[in-house]
Amino acid sequence: MIKKLTEYDFPADLKIMDEKELELLAIQIREFLIDKVSKTGGHIASNLGVVELTIALHKVFDSPKDKIVWDVGHQAYVHKILTGRAEGFDHLRQFGGMSGFPKAKESEHDVFDTGHSTTSISAAMGMAAARDIKGENFDVIAVIGDGSLTGGMAYEAMDNLGFKKNKMIIILNDNGMSISKNVGGISRYLGSIRTSHGYLNAKKFLKGKMDNEKGVGHSIAQGLASFKNDIKYTIMDNPGVFFENLGITYFGPVDGHDIKQVVAALEKAKTLNEPVVIHCLTKKGKGYTNAEKMPRKFHGIGPFDPETGDPIKKSDKPSFSRVMGEHLLEMAKKDEKIVAITAAMGEATGLKDYSIEIPERYFDVGIAEEHGVTFAAGLAKEGLKPMVCIYSSFLQRAYDQLLEDVCLQNLHVVFLLDRAGVVGADGETHHGIFDLSYLNTMPNMKVLVPKDAKELKEMMDWAKDQDGPVAIRYPRGEADNSDEELSDDFEPGSRRVFEGEGIEVWGLGKMYPMAEKVRDLLNSKGFDCGLVDVTCEKPLDITPYKDINARYVITIEDNVISGGFGDHLANRLNDEHCHVIRFGWPDEFIEHGSYDELADKYGLTPEKITSKVLRFIKSDLEKDGIKIGKKEDPQ
Amino acid sequence: MIKKLTEYDFPADLKIMDEKELELLAIQIREFLIDKVSKTGGHIASNLGVVELTIALHKVFDSPKDKIVWDVGHQAYVHKILTGRAEGFDHLRQFGGMSGFPKAKESEHDVFDTGHSTTSISAAMGMAAARDIKGENFDVIAVIGDGSLTGGMAYEAMDNLGFKKNKMIIILNDNGMSISKNVGGISRYLGSIRTSHGYLNAKKFLKGKMDNEKGVGHSIAQGLASFKNDIKYTIMDNPGVFFENLGITYFGPVDGHDIKQVVAALEKAKTLNEPVVIHCLTKKGKGYTNAEKMPRKFHGIGPFDPETGDPIKKSDKPSFSRVMGEHLLEMAKKDEKIVAITAAMGEATGLKDYSIEIPERYFDVGIAEEHGVTFAAGLAKEGLKPMVCIYSSFLQRAYDQLLEDVCLQNLHVVFLLDRAGVVGADGETHHGIFDLSYLNTMPNMKVLVPKDAKELKEMMDWAKDQDGPVAIRYPRGEADNSDEELSDDFEPGSRRVFEGEGIEVWGLGKMYPMAEKVRDLLNSKGFDCGLVDVTCEKPLDITPYKDINARYVITIEDNVISGGFGDHLANRLNDEHCHVIRFGWPDEFIEHGSYDELADKYGLTPEKITSKVLRFIKSDLEKDGIKIGKKEDPQ
Repeated sequence: MIKKLTEYDFPADLKIMDEKELELLAIQIREFLIDKVSKTGGHIASNLGVVELTIALHKVFDSPKDKIVWDVGHQAYVHKILTGRAEGFDHLRQFGGMSGFPKAKESEHDVFDTGHSTTSISAAMGMAAARDIKGENFDVIAVIGDGSLTGGMAYEAMDNLGFKKNKMIIILNDNGMSISKNVGGISRYLGSIRTSHGYLNAKKFLKGKMDNEKGVGHSIAQGLASFKNDIKYTIMDNPGVFFENLGITYFGPVDGHDIKQVVAALEKAKTLNEPVVIHCLTKKGKGYTNAEKMPRKFHGIGPFDPETGDPIKKSDKPSFSRVMGEHLLEMAKKDEKIVAITAAMGEATGLKDYSIEIPERYFDVGIAEEHGVTFAAGLAKEGLKPMVCIYSSFLQRAYDQLLEDVCLQNLHVVFLLDRAGVVGADGETHHGIFDLSYLNTMPNMKVLVPKDAKELKEMMDWAKDQDGPVAIRYPRGEADNSDEELSDDFEPGSRRVFEGEGIEVWGLGKMYPMAEKVRDLLNSKGFDCGLVDVTCEKPLDITPYKDINARYVITIEDNVISGGFGDHLANRLNDEHCHVIRFGWPDEFIEHGSYDELADKYGLTPEKITSKVLRFIKSDLEKDGIKIGKKEDPQ
Repeated sequence: MIKKLTEYDFPADLKIMDEKELELLAIQIREFLIDKVSKTGGHIASNLGVVELTIALHKVFDSPKDKIVWDVGHQAYVHKILTGRAEGFDHLRQFGGMSGFPKAKESEHDVFDTGHSTTSISAAMGMAAARDIKGENFDVIAVIGDGSLTGGMAYEAMDNLGFKKNKMIIILNDNGMSISKNVGGISRYLGSIRTSHGYLNAKKFLKGKMDNEKGVGHSIAQGLASFKNDIKYTIMDNPGVFFENLGITYFGPVDGHDIKQVVAALEKAKTLNEPVVIHCLTKKGKGYTNAEKMPRKFHGIGPFDPETGDPIKKSDKPSFSRVMGEHLLEMAKKDEKIVAITAAMGEATGLKDYSIEIPERYFDVGIAEEHGVTFAAGLAKEGLKPMVCIYSSFLQRAYDQLLEDVCLQNLHVVFLLDRAGVVGADGETHHGIFDLSYLNTMPNMKVLVPKDAKELKEMMDWAKDQDGPVAIRYPRGEADNSDEELSDDFEPGSRRVFEGEGIEVWGLGKMYPMAEKVRDLLNSKGFDCGLVDVTCEKPLDITPYKDINARYVITIEDNVISGGFGDHLANRLNDEHCHVIRFGWPDEFIEHGSYDELADKYGLTPEKITSKVLRFIKSDLEKDGIKIGKKEDPQ
C-alpha cells in the first residue's frame, strides 16, 4: 500500500526512493494537488508543471543546507509537499493557514520569501557570494520561469553573475508562458530552441545514455562526464549563446518532465565551479487535461470541480477587472488615441477581448513594468492616450519611472491599478496597500478611487481627457452597480452626503459603505455624525470640511495609514482645530486571509472602528474637562 | 574667419556644411566645451566623447521632427549647442540658467526629459509605436551608453522592441565605462567585440569605400548599399548575436569619432523598416588630455583649470561621501561580515579605496539598483552585513525590492543613501527629496539622518549591529566635525536641547542648524522656543514632546513635505492638541540651483520660516480671540 503524502518524512525519504518510486511519487503528487487545490483554490497549473523538476531538485540537493530559491513562488507547492508540509494544503491560502508562496517563517526550507517576479537570481547570487566570502560549501539554485526572464532584473542579475562567476545553478523552467502567453524577443529566442531539432536529439541522446544506468543519482552524472560538450556544442548549434555571451554556461534543453534527465543535468552542474543555467522544457498544467488545455484559466483559480474544471462559486456580479476591460474596449473603439498597456497580465486585468479586437493598440510588454511605464510616457509624448493596466503591488516596480518619466514631464498617462487594497489569499506580497502613500508624494499625480463599477467607468471617461497623469486604483473582487447608467457630469472630489455636529466620517472608495455604517453606529450612540464621500484622493478637495467644521474627522481607507488618505487629509487640515482619527492598515506586513478576516484582526470593521472612535473622544474630551455619556453635543 | 558657435543658425546650418567644415566644427565644439564647462562645472568627459556622433545625428536627421532621446542626458551638451543653445553655457547648471540635462521646457529638440539611466529605449519605442499607430513618418533615435546597458530596463525594452519590430535606431555609445569602470557580462561581451580584429577591418573597409565618395551624406549610404551584410556578416563573426537574438538588427562596430562612418551607418539604418542598433566605439574625454586620462574625475566636475585639470575650489572639509567611504573601509577591516555594494557609483559614493583594499567584499553591480538590493538581501540571509551605497534618487529604482525583498523579511541590510535632499546643479531628476516619504511607509525600516560627519560615522557603527533594515540618508556636500571623537554610546532618536513654552522647533539632520537659527529668531520676537534635535526619523521618538507639551511644533526637513518628517510627526502627535507647522519642499519638482538659491525661492531660510510661523500663530490665536504682539506666553 502506498503511503499518504502526509505520512512520509520528506525530504529524507526522497533520498532512498528509486527511479520507479519517484515516478509513482510524481503521480501521487499530481493527484494530491488536483484534489486539494480544487477545494481551496490556488495556483495549480504552474505547480503541475514542476512536479518532476522539484522531485529532482530534492533528490540531488540537500535542503535547507543547499538553498532553493523559487522565483515568484507560486510554483513552490510541490516543494512544500516535499519539505513536510502536505498537511498544510487543507488550509492553503486561508487565514491562519499555509501560504501559497515560500515563507521563511513557515519552513527552514523556504530560504527566501518571494511573490513578485524576477528576484530569484539576485537573491540566490547573494547567497552564493556570501558562501564564497565565508568559505563555506553548499549549492544555491534559482528556479525561474521563462516568463520572469522578460523582467529586466533577471538580466541585471545574470549580467552580474556572468561577470563574478559565483558557482550557482539557474533552472530555467521554460513552459512557453508566464501568466499570459509569453511575449518578447527572449521568448521567441527560447521558442526557437524549443522547436529546433536539438531538443529531440538531446532527449534521445540522454535516453540512450541513461537506459544503461541503474537508478538515478550521482552515477548518472558520472556516465555523463561529457554532458556539457555533448549536449551543448555537439548536438545543438549552441542554443545557449545568449546566456554564454553573458558569461553563464548553458545546459539544455532538458525534458523537465523526465526526472532522470533533470537529475543528470543537476548532478553535472553541481560538479562545475561556475554559474550554470539548465534549460528545462515543461508543460504548464502537465497531467491534468483541463489545466493543460487552459493553462491561463488554471494559473490562479478559486475552488473548482476537478472533473469539469468549472469554478464552484459563480457570481452574478462582474469583477472590477472585467468592468475595466469591457469599458476600456468600448472607449478605445470610440477614441483611436487610446492604447492599452499591460505587463503580462492581459487576461487578469480584463483585457482579453480588447487584445483580440484592437491588437494594434494593445501592448503586453511582458513582466516589465519599468519599461511599460516609460514606454507609455513615450506614447503620451506623441499625443496618444496610454492606459497602463497593472496590479497595484506590481506597479511598485516602476516607482522611479512613474515619478521621473511620467510625473516630471506631467504626461497624460492613465494608470488603472487593479488589486488595490488587501487582495485576500495571495497575501503580503500582493496586497496593494502602499499605492496611495507613494502616489501622494508624486507631484502632478491625480489619484481616483471608485467605490463601484459605475464610478470606475465614470472615472475612466473623466481621466481620458485630462492633462497629466491620473491613477485610478480599484480593489480586487466584485463590483456593484455595473448596470447603472453613467452620469454625464461626473467630477471626482469630496462630496458631503450628511451634515453633522462636531464629528464626521470621510470614506474613500470601497470603504465608503463602511463609513456609512460607522456613521449609523455613532448616531445610535447619540452623536450627530456627518458623512463625506471621497472619490478623488489627490488633489484632495477639503471644501466639505471648510463648510462645516468638525472637531473629529474619521477617515477610512484600504491602504496603509502611513502616508495614505488619512495622513493626507490631516496634512491638509493642519490649520484647523480638529483631530483626524485614521483607520487603515498598520505599519506592518499584512498576511493572507479574506478581507473580512483581516479587517476583523486589524480593527477595520464598523463596530471596532466605532468603539475606537468612542474611546478616543472620551479621552480627548476628558482632557478638556468634558465628560461624555449623555446625549450632548460632543463639541 | 570662423563664426562663433553662438552665431550659427543650428541645426539648419549643419545641413549645408561639408565634411571638412564638420570636422572643424567638432574641434570648435570641443574647445567651447572645455572653455565653458571649466568655468561652470558640469559633465565634460561624456560630452567630449559624443561630439562627432551628435554632429552626425543632426546632419542625418531632422530634429525635432525626428526624435533624438538621450539616455541619462548628461551627454546632451553638444546636442544643446547644435540646437541653438550655445549661449546657455554661460549659465549652465546655474539657478535660472540652462539645465545640464534635456528639458522639453527648454527646447522643442529635447523630446524626452531624462536624468536617470536606461530609460531611452523605452521612451523612444513609445514614440515609434505612436508614430506607427498614427501612420506618421519620422525617425526615432535612442542614444544609450554601454554603462546604461547594465540596467535591466534596457533589456526589457530591447526584448519588447525586438518582438514588436517598430522601426527605430539605438545608438550604443560604447566608451567602455559608465561613470565607474564598467562591469558585468554584457560589458565583457562588448569589450570582446571592441578588441576583436573586426573593428579595424570594418574601419579599413569603410575608409576604402568612403575615400571614393565626395562629402558625406546620403550619397555615402548609396555607396554602402551592402553595408549591413558586408560589415556584419562578412567582415566580423557576427558580433551582434546578443542583440540579434533579441530580434534587433546589429550594425557595427563603427568608429564613433569618424563623422563619415557614423553618418553612413545612420543613413543605412534610416532606410530599414526595423529596429537597428548601431554600435559606436567612442572615447570618454576625447580630445582633452586631462579628461582622456582621468575620465572618472571628469565625469561630473566643478569648475576647473583647463590647463592642469585641477579643481578651482578646494575645501578643507571632506564630503559626506568621503567620510562614509573612509569609515566603511575602517569598519570592514575590523568586521569581516561587512560587504559593500554599489551600483556603478563606487568612486562617487566614496568607495574607491575600499574597492582596492577589500575587493573580495566589494560588489559594483553596474547600473542595476534592483539587482543590487535583492543581491544584498541574499547576502543578509546568509548572515553577512551588506552596506548598499546608492544615491537617494537612484534608490527609487529599487522601491519594490526594498519593500518586498528586504523589509518584508526584515533583513539586516544597511542603506547608505548619498545625495539625500536637494543636490544643487544636477537638478530635478537628482534631488533626493522623496526618500523619507517612501521609507516611512515601509514596515520594519529604520531611517537615520545625520547632521555631520561625526553622526554619520556613529550611525554607521550603530547600524552595523542592528536587526532589520536601516537607511542612513545624508546630503551632498561638505561634512562638519569630521575630526571629532566618536561617542561610544550613540543612540539615534529625538533629543531635547532646549525647553520652551508652548512652541518648539524640531530639526532633522542637516536642517538642525537651521532649526537653531529659527529658534533664535523666534526668541528675539519674545517667544520662549524649545528645540529638539532629531537623528532618527523612523521609528520616531516623540518622548521629548510628551515631556513638554507645546501648542506649536515646527518641523524642518530636506525632503518633500508630503509623507515626510513633518507629516510623520503630525501623525504620531495626532492625539495631542498641537499644530505641526511643516517646512520642507512643496509638492512640485524642484529645479537646479544651489541649496541657498532654492531655499530662498521655496521659503526655507530661517527668516522666511520664522515669518511664516509668526503669521500662522497670529491667525491661529486670533481664532481663539487672543491677540499677540506683546511679550506673553503664546500658549
